[in-house]
Amino acid sequence: MGAAVMHSALVIGTGLMGTSVALALRAHAVTVHLRDVDPGAARTAASLGAGTELPPSRPVDLAVVAVPPPHVARVLAEVQAEGVAVHHTDLASVKAEPQQEAINLGCDTSRYIGGHPMAGAAHSGPLKARADLFEGRMWALTPTADTGTETLNTALELVALCDAVPVVMQAAAHDRAVALVSHAPHVVASLVAMRMEGAGEREVSLAGPGLRDLTRIAEADPALWLDILGANARVVAGLLEELGADLERVVAALRAAADGDAAARAAGLTAVEDVLRRGRSGRARISGKHDAQPERFELVTVVIGDQPGELARLFADAGHAGVNIEDVRIEHATGQPAGLVHISVTPGLAAPLSKALRGQGWRQR
Amino acid sequence: MGAAVMHSALVIGTGLMGTSVALALRAHAVTVHLRDVDPGAARTAASLGAGTELPPSRPVDLAVVAVPPPHVARVLAEVQAEGVAVHHTDLASVKAEPQQEAINLGCDTSRYIGGHPMAGAAHSGPLKARADLFEGRMWALTPTADTGTETLNTALELVALCDAVPVVMQAAAHDRAVALVSHAPHVVASLVAMRMEGAGEREVSLAGPGLRDLTRIAEADPALWLDILGANARVVAGLLEELGADLERVVAALRAAADGDAAARAAGLTAVEDVLRRGRSGRARISGKHDAQPERFELVTVVIGDQPGELARLFADAGHAGVNIEDVRIEHATGQPAGLVHISVTPGLAAPLSKALRGQGWRQR
Repeated sequence: MGAAVMHSALVIGTGLMGTSVALALRAHAVTVHLRDVDPGAARTAASLGAGTELPPSRPVDLAVVAVPPPHVARVLAEVQAEGVAVHHTDLASVKAEPQQEAINLGCDTSRYIGGHPMAGAAHSGPLKARADLFEGRMWALTPTADTGTETLNTALELVALCDAVPVVMQAAAHDRAVALVSHAPHVVASLVAMRMEGAGEREVSLAGPGLRDLTRIAEADPALWLDILGANARVVAGLLEELGADLERVVAALRAAADGDAAARAAGLTAVEDVLRRGRSGRARISGKHDAQPERFELVTVVIGDQPGELARLFADAGHAGVNIEDVRIEHATGQPAGLVHISVTPGLAAPLSKALRGQGWRQR
Repeated sequence: MGAAVMHSALVIGTGLMGTSVALALRAHAVTVHLRDVDPGAARTAASLGAGTELPPSRPVDLAVVAVPPPHVARVLAEVQAEGVAVHHTDLASVKAEPQQEAINLGCDTSRYIGGHPMAGAAHSGPLKARADLFEGRMWALTPTADTGTETLNTALELVALCDAVPVVMQAAAHDRAVALVSHAPHVVASLVAMRMEGAGEREVSLAGPGLRDLTRIAEADPALWLDILGANARVVAGLLEELGADLERVVAALRAAADGDAAARAAGLTAVEDVLRRGRSGRARISGKHDAQPERFELVTVVIGDQPGELARLFADAGHAGVNIEDVRIEHATGQPAGLVHISVTPGLAAPLSKALRGQGWRQR
């Protein structure tokens, strides 16, 4: 952890992220000062116990700039001009552009390190804030060319106080990584979902869980994502271009499979199969516990109605069977209130659980 | 339902789909004959109570051709040449190409109607078969230009006996619909997942639930999907081309937002925001109950460990609180065994449930 020990901090921007950081620091008895362009937001955060609205009487150990990517550099410059903090970091989802802007604005980059905790993009506002929002999440730290050791240590202490997992990387590498695993996929989900806008009722009625999962992230707040995509536009554009090239190859392969002669058709199908196989192997690298079900767990599927307590009764019965439930997925069947509950258990336990639930009168698949 | 009353059927192809149909028909006392190119598969299906391996002594009411799309027409022609059934249908996920092939092979299309039950593509083989596999699912029926009323009624009776929801549509319309809501999205998920193949460990470590949901369907069996995409290649190619055009527009907008002058940047961002907004509205048309959580339910999030029975205890406690649980989502936090359980309840019930769970000592977010 190094020599740094944080006593005080200033959080600028008391939205979901800033207020959550403030709450985590307060939980470790760090003195936290709150500031927001909207005094109401700062007051709300203070009323939640996130800290005080009073300005610090002497420079705090760390200033946490928790504003949208487009405003990070300007706010950092203002805070450094005030001389209100010793070290500085931010929480924006994009790192390279704000860092370059900070350099352009003449900020002291030796006392600044970029930061990006991987959490919370779905909600916004102080009321959704939690002291444990970042618990167990990755927290990227992006040093500048001349970030000092004390500044890095202070940021590492911040991450530790938030129970997050630090990963130190260059700003550009960070932006490529999040573009790959988050920003570009978000655009793709939006594009696929966009095609449903003009679809007929009948077509929509044929949509299944696969399409719903694929497009879930397209539900997120457009304004928030516009800030993110705008600040990482060049990198995201590059990745989407590569994806577009892959897409063109698949289209050509499908055309060949549809209209080519025997040889072209065979070659086209081989190319399509290659994409399906490589997609499956790429997918295997990111499937978390929940997704690894097919390999790692046995499934027991139960039919439930929509009566109150149905699900609770099911799990109570499963609990009495003494079987540990690894995971749960609920599927609401098309055109009827009943749903399917897929219960994952460690191999060997599906049979006893199934037997126990049958004994309790549960219908199973 | 019309005059048709099914007494006997012949199921050709005793995989997951064929065997499930056979089991559903047996459950309604229909005499079912089973046939498969692999005698072992037919024997397995028979041993599961799906019917008899003996050939019918007189023509059955309905022949159900349950083979992959590329083989449907040939098998239909053979069955009609045998004169072993009065009416004929199939279960393939693609309808136009097999129907055209059937016409080319001189099949009697007046006694044939295409069929496609929306279920089961994830697994395969008779052992996964269930009499209620199609319960509550949509079942597309695609008449030919001269499908007879008796044939349609017999197919409608089949759908009814399987507890499915019939939707009659033209073969071409069906193929466009499934290409839009299933086939094209499947290719997109594979392409996005494919990019993870070459990603670095650090990049992969930043992947979150959003990307996992988006790429889940890329886990499906490549061989099975190659048959589907191959048989609907032209339509899927056309849709992917439109998607590619949208993608190019977004790339251009992002490039403008990154490198253009003030006016170009503003126009670029507006174009990107338009995609995000339209994606959200398109998404709203297909979000099922599970996905509609943010709007329709209140969320209570509980932290659980990986001890046996943890989840069961949680739901038992929730059950005792007398609150009906509408839905559940489990999220396993990065780099630690603990997980988050997001419990959805009808608005107004989150507070009492939260209070009750706190009383039972559950940590909450």
